[in-house]
Amino acid sequence: MDPKDNTSTASCESPVCVHNPHLDSLKDDILYHFSLGTGTHNLPAMFGDVKFVCVGGSPWRMMSFIKYIAAELRMEDPKSEYPNICAGTDRYAMYKVGPVLSVSHGMGIPSIAIMLHELIKLLHHSHCTDVTIIRIGTSGGIGLEPGTVVVTKQSVDATFLPKFEQVILGKTVVRNTDLDQSLAEELLQCSKELNQFETVIGNTMCTLDFYEGQARLDGAFCSYTETDKQDFLNRANEAGVCNIEMESSVFAAMCKLSGLRAAVVCVTLLDRLKGDQLSSSSEVLHDYQHRPQVLVSCYIKKQLKAKAARR
Amino acid sequence: MDPKDNTSTASCESPVCVHNPHLDSLKDDILYHFSLGTGTHNLPAMFGDVKFVCVGGSPWRMMSFIKYIAAELRMEDPKSEYPNICAGTDRYAMYKVGPVLSVSHGMGIPSIAIMLHELIKLLHHSHCTDVTIIRIGTSGGIGLEPGTVVVTKQSVDATFLPKFEQVILGKTVVRNTDLDQSLAEELLQCSKELNQFETVIGNTMCTLDFYEGQARLDGAFCSYTETDKQDFLNRANEAGVCNIEMESSVFAAMCKLSGLRAAVVCVTLLDRLKGDQLSSSSEVLHDYQHRPQVLVSCYIKKQLKAKAARR
Repeated sequence: MDPKDNTSTASCESPVCVHNPHLDSLKDDILYHFSLGTGTHNLPAMFGDVKFVCVGGSPWRMMSFIKYIAAELRMEDPKSEYPNICAGTDRYAMYKVGPVLSVSHGMGIPSIAIMLHELIKLLHHSHCTDVTIIRIGTSGGIGLEPGTVVVTKQSVDATFLPKFEQVILGKTVVRNTDLDQSLAEELLQCSKELNQFETVIGNTMCTLDFYEGQARLDGAFCSYTETDKQDFLNRANEAGVCNIEMESSVFAAMCKLSGLRAAVVCVTLLDRLKGDQLSSSSEVLHDYQHRPQVLVSCYIKKQLKAKAARR
Repeated sequence: MDPKDNTSTASCESPVCVHNPHLDSLKDDILYHFSLGTGTHNLPAMFGDVKFVCVGGSPWRMMSFIKYIAAELRMEDPKSEYPNICAGTDRYAMYKVGPVLSVSHGMGIPSIAIMLHELIKLLHHSHCTDVTIIRIGTSGGIGLEPGTVVVTKQSVDATFLPKFEQVILGKTVVRNTDLDQSLAEELLQCSKELNQFETVIGNTMCTLDFYEGQARLDGAFCSYTETDKQDFLNRANEAGVCNIEMESSVFAAMCKLSGLRAAVVCVTLLDRLKGDQLSSSSEVLHDYQHRPQVLVSCYIKKQLKAKAARR
């Protein structure tokens, strides 16, 4: 390795920022929902080499992703064993292969926010640098063929505005939901090279509820008509919304605050203009859910290849 | 059984209400996040006898609860096997013993709301009647000895008001968070009879975030001082708030809408006036988390005994 290049890279390294002066006065930091901590685990040794973090709702999917990316990077464990690093809790699951960390986050803004607070502290305590984080999820599409992958341009709320409202000590603070546009373009380029499924860049609506919050007609409660529903989804579509999910806004806001390069890549499981129920076969849904993994895996491989070439 | 009594009971039976005219036009109803459905499962046969539903965040805890209540009701499976009824998905876990259903709901309002929409439809499709539902959870206490159990009087938001704001088609609808006061009193009475741990009735604050939303000083981000934190918690306490968690408001609102008799029973894992980190040993935390189970189990046994005596 050229020492000059190394120095030059080091000087550009981007840390993972926390914004909390109180953390310095903590003797140990217990990451309770991961069952990890600075007093009980050597976090820099465990996570210091992490460069890519992929997060998704389902623990099974994040386990399947680590197996897939391990094979793609030719870093398979010969015994196919990928231990859950958070085995001491059932709140989240976490897996690691080389520079890739895979973490589940459950469903909804509060659930992913708890995970991100502890993940950002984990990356910070581990002295990680230049970390890219990508949410690989599922969503409902608007006017797209089911199976289409959406890379989020902006995460918008249920009034189609690109903001996240965080309540702090009872007062609402508005946070920006910008994502990394160059990363989104690079992911779109990967999809073109793969040529296996349709991928688009568009706005993603993030809601606090799956049924009434997303204008579904099949929840336990529904006080609006099919026409009201279509009108709401059409207005969303006119505002550039391609898909709807439940985590992107706080994900974008928190990653931006901590200086993480972030993207949201969600497959659409159905076209919400045509229905509400997820009635496709489990094989079809499983194939759809694999698509963001294929796309992100392609991106990570390209990045690692480019980095190796620079050495 | 006296047929007259039977008729008299039948006439008082309270159904589980859905409020959605669109459900009648669905051929099948797929409860996607449970991996169950009316077209694939005989729901009345599987769930028609359910009278008590206990819900909690962690799947492990809800499995441990079903084993415990099975032993308490002398309905143990000789092989100690309690299959997860939702084994086809990892979103939620569900277990059943006799008239008791135990369901996990993950963390936060959106996660429990998805589960409740599908649970209310499940109970409705199963023609269940006279169902009592109790959330058994964990929380941070305010000015209480850790391990104290709080039965919620009212669920309040981060401004200490007893309301839940549901966003429907981009518009905010305010819902009532009343819980069943007689059920809360009956649970308090059970605790007195048990005499094993302290139980109080008080208000519960329900937040959308665990760190900044609950005035913690140990998140990735914190822009306020220790004094600001103490001031917020003291104001909460003056408003009758005994503990803080993340699901009670939507739980209260949805159960009220569907006519379910509902209670929230949460143990306090720490006193937030004295700290933020969950640093007690896992044995102590485990013991605390068992307390709501003991209390609710005592209540269920009393109810079943009273019902048997009426026959």
